[in-house]
Amino acid sequence: MSRAKELELRLERAEEQIRLYQKISRYLVKPVGLGEALQAVVGLVADFTQADSCLLYFISQGELVLCAAHGPNPAAVGDVRLKLNEGLTGWVARERRLLAISREAYADTRFKYFSNLPEDSFEAFLSAPVLVRNRVVGVINLQHRQPHSHSGDDMDMITTAGQQLGAMLALAAVDLATLDSMDLTELALGPRVAVRDN
Amino acid sequence: MSRAKELELRLERAEEQIRLYQKISRYLVKPVGLGEALQAVVGLVADFTQADSCLLYFISQGELVLCAAHGPNPAAVGDVRLKLNEGLTGWVARERRLLAISREAYADTRFKYFSNLPEDSFEAFLSAPVLVRNRVVGVINLQHRQPHSHSGDDMDMITTAGQQLGAMLALAAVDLATLDSMDLTELALGPRVAVRDN
Repeated sequence: MSRAKELELRLERAEEQIRLYQKISRYLVKPVGLGEALQAVVGLVADFTQADSCLLYFISQGELVLCAAHGPNPAAVGDVRLKLNEGLTGWVARERRLLAISREAYADTRFKYFSNLPEDSFEAFLSAPVLVRNRVVGVINLQHRQPHSHSGDDMDMITTAGQQLGAMLALAAVDLATLDSMDLTELALGPRVAVRDN
Repeated sequence: MSRAKELELRLERAEEQIRLYQKISRYLVKPVGLGEALQAVVGLVADFTQADSCLLYFISQGELVLCAAHGPNPAAVGDVRLKLNEGLTGWVARERRLLAISREAYADTRFKYFSNLPEDSFEAFLSAPVLVRNRVVGVINLQHRQPHSHSGDDMDMITTAGQQLGAMLALAAVDLATLDSMDLTELALGPRVAVRDN
């Protein structure tokens, strides 16, 4: 491949990544429900990585509950539940760390099988925690049927997606009436401004 | 310039933009105070655009209060206040729209002078609303001393920065104890999951 052709392909990919971040960010302010926004983001992330499946779990009452899914089994949303002490997904939530497995993810001793998820036979697995501030509130997983070496770009991207999904959750949780009653200047600058005003 | 050289420069710039988004996103989860995070983000945005000044205002008690600043006059943070019905910044907050002026921004009838801000003599101005969901909570401004044509990339970037800064604010406002008491699955999927559980 010529140098120019190679650069063209890399530029195209970089521009795709920029557009991905911008599209995800736009969902922070779009007037759609949280469920629709989450579903859109897992779709965008799956498309960008050409993954066969992208699953988003939130922690609810001590379990990881599937809350958005792009892939072969979207009907499992709301039904699939994982204990925090089991599976690769539980490991990511507990350890608060990125996990990348390029082949035979199903053979990992941390893996948990589900009879109802075709993702159980997938080879490659990339997973990051979903964070609200310093708190793990969920996990996002990308899966490929075939062995797949995750690039550094993919790892950075899924890490960022985990942060953005946490922000999306915080935005849905924040009460606008409470926000209206807050002094945003004091929130940003601390009480010193109030003192100045006196 | 050769085709390869041109592509190299464009790729370099695209990679800078990717890193900018990733760095901003990381501030959503960093264990630092909101003020420090805002200050870091205005610095990152100013560096990326090589702007001479980047100012962030939040709306507080019906006024726009300068809450973070990168540029010649950081000491004005907490002091500079604008009415919502005055200045280019007030226009952006009211109209909830991006504003890009490439030269003679100071001559715009919507402009407001401050005796204490050297930014008053700047030529170019790029500004976007800061949003929490569909609510304008502030404005971010970029200023260049010299005339400067803002690229589409810069406009997309500042729009995204406005969304990210709003998310940062929501994350700071959200009470983690309240979040712990919420059913995140219900927040994401609505009450249908609760019904299923019965």
